Amino acid sequence: MLTIPFKNKGSFLYAEIYEFIKQEITDGNLKYGEKLPSKRSLASHLAVSVNTVDTAYSQLVAEGYLEAIPKRGYFVCQIATYLMKDANRIQDKRATIKKTEVVTIDFSPNAIDQRIFPYDAFRKIFKSTFNEDDNNLLNKPDIQGELELRKALVDLLYHSRGVRCHEEQIIIGSGTDHLLQILGLLWGRNKPVILENPVYLKAYHIFEKMGNPVISIDIDEKGIQIEPLKNYSNVAIYVTPSHQFPLGMSMPIDRRIRLLNFANQEEGNYIIEDDYDSEFRYNEKPLPSLQSIDNSGRVIYMGTFSKSIAPSFRISYMVLPEELLKAYQETAEAISSPVSSLEQKMIAAFIASGFFEKHVNKMRKVYKGKRIVLMNALKNLGSQVKITGENAGHHLLVQLDNGLTEEEMYHRALARGIRVYPVSPYFIHGLPKHYKSMVLLGYGSLTDEQIHNGIGILKKAWDL
Amino acid sequence: MLTIPFKNKGSFLYAEIYEFIKQEITDGNLKYGEKLPSKRSLASHLAVSVNTVDTAYSQLVAEGYLEAIPKRGYFVCQIATYLMKDANRIQDKRATIKKTEVVTIDFSPNAIDQRIFPYDAFRKIFKSTFNEDDNNLLNKPDIQGELELRKALVDLLYHSRGVRCHEEQIIIGSGTDHLLQILGLLWGRNKPVILENPVYLKAYHIFEKMGNPVISIDIDEKGIQIEPLKNYSNVAIYVTPSHQFPLGMSMPIDRRIRLLNFANQEEGNYIIEDDYDSEFRYNEKPLPSLQSIDNSGRVIYMGTFSKSIAPSFRISYMVLPEELLKAYQETAEAISSPVSSLEQKMIAAFIASGFFEKHVNKMRKVYKGKRIVLMNALKNLGSQVKITGENAGHHLLVQLDNGLTEEEMYHRALARGIRVYPVSPYFIHGLPKHYKSMVLLGYGSLTDEQIHNGIGILKKAWDL
Repeated sequence: MLTIPFKNKGSFLYAEIYEFIKQEITDGNLKYGEKLPSKRSLASHLAVSVNTVDTAYSQLVAEGYLEAIPKRGYFVCQIATYLMKDANRIQDKRATIKKTEVVTIDFSPNAIDQRIFPYDAFRKIFKSTFNEDDNNLLNKPDIQGELELRKALVDLLYHSRGVRCHEEQIIIGSGTDHLLQILGLLWGRNKPVILENPVYLKAYHIFEKMGNPVISIDIDEKGIQIEPLKNYSNVAIYVTPSHQFPLGMSMPIDRRIRLLNFANQEEGNYIIEDDYDSEFRYNEKPLPSLQSIDNSGRVIYMGTFSKSIAPSFRISYMVLPEELLKAYQETAEAISSPVSSLEQKMIAAFIASGFFEKHVNKMRKVYKGKRIVLMNALKNLGSQVKITGENAGHHLLVQLDNGLTEEEMYHRALARGIRVYPVSPYFIHGLPKHYKSMVLLGYGSLTDEQIHNGIGILKKAWDL
Repeated sequence: MLTIPFKNKGSFLYAEIYEFIKQEITDGNLKYGEKLPSKRSLASHLAVSVNTVDTAYSQLVAEGYLEAIPKRGYFVCQIATYLMKDANRIQDKRATIKKTEVVTIDFSPNAIDQRIFPYDAFRKIFKSTFNEDDNNLLNKPDIQGELELRKALVDLLYHSRGVRCHEEQIIIGSGTDHLLQILGLLWGRNKPVILENPVYLKAYHIFEKMGNPVISIDIDEKGIQIEPLKNYSNVAIYVTPSHQFPLGMSMPIDRRIRLLNFANQEEGNYIIEDDYDSEFRYNEKPLPSLQSIDNSGRVIYMGTFSKSIAPSFRISYMVLPEELLKAYQETAEAISSPVSSLEQKMIAAFIASGFFEKHVNKMRKVYKGKRIVLMNALKNLGSQVKITGENAGHHLLVQLDNGLTEEEMYHRALARGIRVYPVSPYFIHGLPKHYKSMVLLGYGSLTDEQIHNGIGILKKAWDL
C-alpha cells in the first residue's frame, strides 16, 4: 500500500496524493500495468475521504498516468521515458540588451506631438463606444474591418483625398506592413513587386520574406522613373506619390499619368499608393491621390492613422479595386482580422463625430509652426547646408557640403545627445553618390525650443 | 488673357482659378511650354487679389501642372495624355452578399457568454490606463509587445500552465493566425509543417499560402500519432494537446513524452503547442502544458485571450525557446507589431489587478453549468447519440447512429433555426468513415433555456 508523507493536512491533500503517485510512476516505482489500491482502501489507509482519493485519481486519469477500467480498478499506463538529450543546448541565449545612448533631442521622422493628443475626446468616445448595448463589441471583428469604420472612411477619403470607393472595397489593417502582407498572400509569390529606391524598408523586407521577386527602381526628382518599368509586366508597383518616403518630394501630375498609363497596359499591373502622411502639407492643399485620377481600377490606395492619431493605434486601411475583391475574399478566409473591434469603433466614432477633422487641422497648424521654426533655425547653418523634402509630412532632409560623411554627421550629433536619421539605410543597394552626407530631421515630437537648441548644437557638431 | 467664369465670389476664388487652369491644360487648350499671365496681370484682369492668384498658381506648381521659372514666370509643364484603355473593365464586380438564414439558436463553438463580460472592470481599467502620464501610451508598441503585458504573462502562464519563461521570450500577437505567420516568416518556406488532422483550418491555410510544405497526420483517440512523424525531420509540429481542436480530447502523458522525444531528436524540430482554451476544463485541473515538461527548448507555447476575455480583443501570445530568439529578432525587424499599445496595457492591468483570474473563475463556473444543462439535455436523445470531447472548452461533439448524414444533420437543424457545426470541414483530406454524422455543439453563448430548447428541437429534427 502507498504511504504518502503528507506535508500539509489542508485542503490540498488530493494534490499531494496526485503528485506522489505521478512521481512514483515517473520514477518507475509504479510500473506499467500495475494495479493501484481501490479508492476506498487507499482512503482508509491514508485516513482521508474517498472523495479526496477520487479527485487525485481522476486527475491522473485525465493526464494519462492511470487508466480506469470499469469494475476492475485503476492501472498504471504505459508511459514513454523522456529522453533529455543534449541538455546543454539550453543556455542563456537571451539576446543582449542593446545599450541605449543618451539622447536628449530626437529628430525622429516618425514621432508625433503627444502634447496635442485629444485625450478628453478619446475618453468621451470610449464612454459612448464601450457600451453593453452594442452587440458587436465583443464579437470577433468583421474580417474586412468593422462596417462603421469602413463607412466613415468612404466619406473621409472622398472629401480629403478624392478617393472614390464603396465600403466593400475597404480593408482595415493593423498597419501598412500588415496590408502589404495581405497583398503578398493575395497575389502569391510569383508576382514581382517594384519598389521605389530609396524606400520604406519594411516594404522591402516584407515582400522579400514572402518570396516575391523584388525589383527596385531609382527615383529622380519627380519620383519613380517610368522608363525602367517598361522591362516588366504583371507587376505591383509600390509608390508614395504624395510625399516620397524618405526623400519627401511629391510626384508631379505628368509622372502620375505616365505611371497610370504604364499600369493600364496590362490586367495584372497594379499600383500600391501609400498615402501615409498626406494630411500634412503646409503651403498648398494636399495633392489629389493617384486613386482619384485612376479610371481603370489599377490603384490600391493605402493610408494609416499612425501620424494623424498616434502610432500606438495600429489601424490602417486600404482601398482595393473591384477586380481584386474576389481574390481578397478567398485570401481573407485564411486570416482573422488583427484589429480590435473596440478600437475600430472608437476611431469610427472619432471620425464621424468631427473630432478627427478638428484634430488634424490642429495638428497641421502645430506642425506648420514647428516647420517654420526648423526652417529658420536651419538658415543659420549657412550655405553648406541644402534642405529638401520640406513641403510635407513631419520631416525634411539636410545635406552637408563641408566634407563630413553621413556617418560623421550621425555620430557627432549623437555624441552631443542629438539623434538624426541617416538616409543611407533606406537605399536598397547602397547610397548613390548624390545623396551622400544626407540625414532626415523629423520635428513632429519636438518643442520649438528643442528644435532651436538642437539645430544650434548640430551647428557646432557639424563644424558649420 | 484667361477669362474665368466665376461661379462663386466667395473665399474659394483661388480654387476656381486653379480648377479652370488645370482643366485648360488637361483639355490641351493651354499647351506645353506656354507662358501664363503674370500673377499681377491676371489678378488685375480678374479683379481679384494677387494673393488669390498666387495660391492657385502655387497649387498648380505643387501638382506639376505649372513650372515657376524665377524672373521669367509660370509655364505649362509637359503632361502625358491619360490613356484610358478598356474602360469597361470596371464593372460592378462587387461580391454578392451571402443570404443569411434565420438562426435563432446558434451552437457556435467560438462564441462566449457576453452577459458575464466585466464591463465595469474594463471601464475602471480604461480610466487608469488611458493616462496622460504614461509616456508610452501613444508610441508605437514594442515590437515584441508591451513590457507590462509580457511581465504579467510570465507570472500568469507559470501559475496557470506551468510555463517557464522570461519576458524576452514572449511575443504578443494579434491572434493565433498572426503568430503562425510570424513563425512562417521566421523559418522560411523550406520548413515543413506537420498538422494534426482534423485541425484548426486557418493554420492549414496560413502555412499553405506562405508556401511551407504542409503534412497532415491523422489523430487517434490520444491525439497526433507518433509513428508517421518518423518519416520527417527538421519540422514544426502544430498540436492542441490540452483540448484537440475540433475533436476535444486531451493528449495523455505518454503521447506527450513521445512527442517531445521525437522533437528532441533533432535541432530543427519544434512543437507548436496551441493552448487556445486550456482555461476551461471542468472535472479536473487543467492539464500541465507540454512546455512545462519540455527541458530541451523544443516547444513554442501559444495562447489567446479570445475565449478568456473576448474575441473582439485581438491579443494572443507565444513563448519562444531561447534558441529561436535571434531568428525572431531578425524577422521581427521586418514587421511592426499589429497590437494596439492601449489594449495591451489594458489587458496587462486586467491581469495584474486580479480581475482576470476572478473573471476566468466566474466563466468556468458559468460554462460548467451550461455544460451540465447540455449533457442532461443530450441524455434525452437516447442511445443513438454518442458524445465526445466534452471535458474541456466550450463545445462537444455529437455523433448520430440513426442513418442521418452530417449534411442532413446540418440542414434539418438549420431549417428549424438551429445552427450546428459539421466536423468534416476540419479534415484536410475529407472525412474518415468513423467520423461521419458528427457535428460540433458549442454552448458558450447560449442560455440554459436556449440549450434546453435547442436540443429539444434537434431531437425532432433528427428523428430521435
